[in-house]
Amino acid sequence: MSFDVLQEKILALKNPTVVGLDPRLEYIPSFIRARWTKALGTTLNAAAEAVFEFNCGLMDALAGLVPAVKPQSAFYERFGVPGISALEKTLRYARDKGFYVIGDMKRGDIGSTAQAYADAYLGTVPVEGEEFEPFPCDALTVNAYLGSDGIRPFLEICSRRGKAIFVLVKTSNPSSGELQDLMIDGRPVYETVCRLTESLGLGQEGKHGFSPVGAVAGATYPEQLQRLREQFPNTFFLVPGYGAQGGTAKDVSHAFSAGGRGAVVNSSRGILCAWQKTGRDGRDYQEAARMAALAMRDDIAGCISID
Amino acid sequence: MSFDVLQEKILALKNPTVVGLDPRLEYIPSFIRARWTKALGTTLNAAAEAVFEFNCGLMDALAGLVPAVKPQSAFYERFGVPGISALEKTLRYARDKGFYVIGDMKRGDIGSTAQAYADAYLGTVPVEGEEFEPFPCDALTVNAYLGSDGIRPFLEICSRRGKAIFVLVKTSNPSSGELQDLMIDGRPVYETVCRLTESLGLGQEGKHGFSPVGAVAGATYPEQLQRLREQFPNTFFLVPGYGAQGGTAKDVSHAFSAGGRGAVVNSSRGILCAWQKTGRDGRDYQEAARMAALAMRDDIAGCISID
Repeated sequence: MSFDVLQEKILALKNPTVVGLDPRLEYIPSFIRARWTKALGTTLNAAAEAVFEFNCGLMDALAGLVPAVKPQSAFYERFGVPGISALEKTLRYARDKGFYVIGDMKRGDIGSTAQAYADAYLGTVPVEGEEFEPFPCDALTVNAYLGSDGIRPFLEICSRRGKAIFVLVKTSNPSSGELQDLMIDGRPVYETVCRLTESLGLGQEGKHGFSPVGAVAGATYPEQLQRLREQFPNTFFLVPGYGAQGGTAKDVSHAFSAGGRGAVVNSSRGILCAWQKTGRDGRDYQEAARMAALAMRDDIAGCISID
Repeated sequence: MSFDVLQEKILALKNPTVVGLDPRLEYIPSFIRARWTKALGTTLNAAAEAVFEFNCGLMDALAGLVPAVKPQSAFYERFGVPGISALEKTLRYARDKGFYVIGDMKRGDIGSTAQAYADAYLGTVPVEGEEFEPFPCDALTVNAYLGSDGIRPFLEICSRRGKAIFVLVKTSNPSSGELQDLMIDGRPVYETVCRLTESLGLGQEGKHGFSPVGAVAGATYPEQLQRLREQFPNTFFLVPGYGAQGGTAKDVSHAFSAGGRGAVVNSSRGILCAWQKTGRDGRDYQEAARMAALAMRDDIAGCISID
């Protein structure tokens, strides 16, 4: 349970990467966008259908090569209700294709509200005696600013249903240090958050030794990533910041335990926009994405060994 | 601009309160739920339609008495795509009824992702040259754990479109102190966050002296609320925790500046569930909500004067 499902998929494919499905319109080849605009007019519906088609095409190309996908909620919410419908369909398509699905929602709230988010993304929702699964994810990103009240409702569902969460610890953006690097009793805030949340998952480690409470730690801060890896052996890391944001294979290698365990590295733009570098019109986006995903896998394999 | 619109509505109604639209199904009278289940079966659609009808009934009853409503996203996401559709319709209905609309989404992400959230809730989204307004809110709750990268995209839209944000500073839940009360250089984390975010809004104060960067500070921690009020005269506070969570009128009074300015107090359960205390079957939910909202207004008016 916990992160076993993800770890097994990574081992089977020898590929510790996740593709972020962050479909900005400008990432989508114009032949797809034009077709939907022609069919549905200049509408949010047309945008959302283009997003879903692009996602499906990417997933078709990446299945059997990349173990996981990570839809970023903002880029679906942005297209309103049709966008959320595209998100829901993307999550179900990803599951059907065998991907481990990380919902990058960064939700964080208290008590019964955290419970509502947990039900929506990792659990089931009862309506008049029947159960529904609105947005099926295997794992979810969570913000822990509100303390353990905001984490426990997720954990309870993780235990019961074999799901997992990634708590924001040290994010990859330039200003992440403004709060996260400040010192509390000789330790930075991000370590304090990791310690707090790791303690909540203790005793729930799966067979690979990782608890269901993972952490987000950016490739753009390799030293901090290394310290986190050393201090939190039971924490599975989701590592953004590789590629377009500047993180290298060497940088992300610090996130891994022995045998290439315990981390998964995200790339979004590098895969989604690979077609923009081939000099063609985007009709090769699937092949370009697959080539870029292979290159990323091999790049990281040059710095860690998965066995 | 900034919080002027909210402050003016509060002054006009002499009522510094906001009703949280957190529609758990058990808060909705059974005659509404049963009607929709009969029409649409046991479905997420039926649940979402019940939510929207209940919200509309509440807003009809509260218009002209309460200046603002605050839909809590989790309780709509929970009902999947139909739930998000109910959220969207609720936001538009609220605007048409003249409420100031605070989206309680607690979003927080970096750079272009924060921009996508800002566009979705406070701005407009371009699709092939046309602009859409997917989820129209006047203000949004935001999580600042990621630093100023995560705040600036919101601020830019606030300046341009007269919108505002409330950054999570000191939340009302029991475990909020686990991180928020830890000390950084002699100041608690929550003060550090408030200082960081307040600085981003400086120079953008409206005519009542408040910048577009407000803060969430819970009624359940009245001493901290008082200190925040003293230290951050330009910050508008959104105060949860009144009523069901234990905060009193005296507690929330600390959030206000002279003349009853600079704060708005939330109640959800106390208003939405008022009908459960009348001993009737819920057909009086509108009257019960209005009575509870009047009682809340008068309770707070006993501790502050708005002039």
